[in-house]
Amino acid sequence: MRDWLRLLHTPGLGPRRVARLLEAFGTPAAALQADARAWAAAGAGGSPCEGGDVAVREAGVDADLEWLESDPRHFILTRDDPDYPPLLAQLPDPPPALYLVGDPAMLRRPQIAIVGSREATPQGLRIAERFARSLASAGLTVTSGLARGIDAAAHRGALSGPGGSTVAVVATGPDRVYPSAHRRLAHRVADQGLMVALWPTGTAARSGHFPQRNRVISGLALGTLVVEAALRSGSLITARLAAEQGRSVYAVPGSILSPLSRGCHRLIQEGAQLVESPDDILEDLAEWLGVGGRSSDPAPPPDDAASLDPEHERVLTLMGFDPVSLEELLQRTGLTVETLSSILVLMELNGRVASLSHGRYQRLDAGTHTT
Amino acid sequence: MRDWLRLLHTPGLGPRRVARLLEAFGTPAAALQADARAWAAAGAGGSPCEGGDVAVREAGVDADLEWLESDPRHFILTRDDPDYPPLLAQLPDPPPALYLVGDPAMLRRPQIAIVGSREATPQGLRIAERFARSLASAGLTVTSGLARGIDAAAHRGALSGPGGSTVAVVATGPDRVYPSAHRRLAHRVADQGLMVALWPTGTAARSGHFPQRNRVISGLALGTLVVEAALRSGSLITARLAAEQGRSVYAVPGSILSPLSRGCHRLIQEGAQLVESPDDILEDLAEWLGVGGRSSDPAPPPDDAASLDPEHERVLTLMGFDPVSLEELLQRTGLTVETLSSILVLMELNGRVASLSHGRYQRLDAGTHTT
Repeated sequence: MRDWLRLLHTPGLGPRRVARLLEAFGTPAAALQADARAWAAAGAGGSPCEGGDVAVREAGVDADLEWLESDPRHFILTRDDPDYPPLLAQLPDPPPALYLVGDPAMLRRPQIAIVGSREATPQGLRIAERFARSLASAGLTVTSGLARGIDAAAHRGALSGPGGSTVAVVATGPDRVYPSAHRRLAHRVADQGLMVALWPTGTAARSGHFPQRNRVISGLALGTLVVEAALRSGSLITARLAAEQGRSVYAVPGSILSPLSRGCHRLIQEGAQLVESPDDILEDLAEWLGVGGRSSDPAPPPDDAASLDPEHERVLTLMGFDPVSLEELLQRTGLTVETLSSILVLMELNGRVASLSHGRYQRLDAGTHTT
Repeated sequence: MRDWLRLLHTPGLGPRRVARLLEAFGTPAAALQADARAWAAAGAGGSPCEGGDVAVREAGVDADLEWLESDPRHFILTRDDPDYPPLLAQLPDPPPALYLVGDPAMLRRPQIAIVGSREATPQGLRIAERFARSLASAGLTVTSGLARGIDAAAHRGALSGPGGSTVAVVATGPDRVYPSAHRRLAHRVADQGLMVALWPTGTAARSGHFPQRNRVISGLALGTLVVEAALRSGSLITARLAAEQGRSVYAVPGSILSPLSRGCHRLIQEGAQLVESPDDILEDLAEWLGVGGRSSDPAPPPDDAASLDPEHERVLTLMGFDPVSLEELLQRTGLTVETLSSILVLMELNGRVASLSHGRYQRLDAGTHTT
């Protein structure tokens, strides 16, 4: 273990070069014995630590080991460990070590990655949460990146159902949380699921870490679901990595007027599967799941029977599914401001409608119109 | 002509059996000379009119001919006419005759069918109208069924642009309008485009007519675009007929919470092309369109040429897609209150901007946002 960590703490060595060293020398110990010339011959470049660098490296290794021993739920899983996730091992240059906080058994379960925009709409967040909850209840572990927006909704959704489990892959060391606002969520994930860090203790989030983090999210999972993504976004990159890795890509469509649906639509045009419900994914991944684990919900159910008032229904119908201003809604419904406002407040309480910024409203529930 | 009409007015003869008679006997006259036994041998069943039926038939033929001569814009186009639309002639059992009101030249232009729900959402109607307007401006004739909802929006959109043309295929005789609320629209279509009826004068709408009408809508067009459709709907049937006829099928995605997007999503899952903008269709049909006829807009064009003013464009860009106050917009644009207000009023009249409460404004058109 110590030699693995020494390799990880050698300045400038990323997963690709570590992989080349291991291929050339067999073990971390042998790689560390070799000199700079042998490293260059192995295509790994750089050089083993010498002089003062050794002290810095050993301090980093000590910090990792101290972290490892400080809690029975801390683990470091190296590439040669039989518990190293087999799907991840299939990637070219898989991460040499995973820093884990929580239950490592999560890595042996079939995983579905759920990713999407940090700036998701209320509807997008709700969809991510519902898919995550439903897929987690059906036996899939929901893997995401602990980011704001869709990622957080996916983790929360997975944890909200009975027996649901989730894995968060983060772009920091295992002792840091990014974004810091997600500290509580990170603790819940570690308590009920698993946090996976790709960098040593003390490593802060760096923009250069995110591509590698995205590659591991898709690499751990059987398939990647994208819920709301702009055209040029990390989520699209994750989805394309999943496709390159030979995994399934699923995308949730949305209004063509919404810039946050463009990424999903592009993926569908490129061959991703359009999904409307968790069952679309469960059917596709059926071979990986026990039959008993199947969800049978065709669509998310309405939140409250009380909101079935016909006048409320009429307002919902006239509302459509895109954000709409109060003015527009007044025109469409012909109601007075007072009546409409009180209906909207009630439906907001029921969770059927979200109040957006600037006095706009958006329908949140699935409609029941079937003709 | 008279013999063609006699065949059409023979009780119980539909397009399929008329096609078999023509195949067996060559001409309507020859078919009418043959007896019931010869008809059965031809696989057409039924029998030529005899006795009292002849009088009924001749009265129907007289009514058709009277209708034909009553207006220079009335036509009856039989299958043997060189002007019979070649794409329609490719179908098995094409309609033996088309009753036309308007400009028959429409049938020689490349057509795109736009169909969808009668109960469309406001967004769906707007999308249908914009696609129709944009595609019609690019040189495609927009074909639909004059029904409520998406059909009517498609006809209106096509007629709203410069040089836009439209064809309505109806499930009645050429002297009837269904639904009657669309009388004015039907007249506009006949004035600026073409009405196509598949049944003789005096025929009212019957539910049994709609499948045949749908088949002709998709059969006339190079491709069929579906904008909002429920899972079990005539629009889906039209789209599947288009696919069977070897034509392109396009579908507009929407919120997975909207039942009226389910049909479109199903079509995409079955292989239809997901389209976000008219250009997706124009690119697909490029070979059928002159280069000059192509639209180069990545998104539906503005509603009024006046709004192409670069200053207007700049204001729209700075506006973004969320509601924004006049103050904020003054800051962003650096314009005077007078100039900005007059631009906003013009763009509001053009339908590109909505004025919200508290002096806020919101962009209504689809943006050209590409990041």
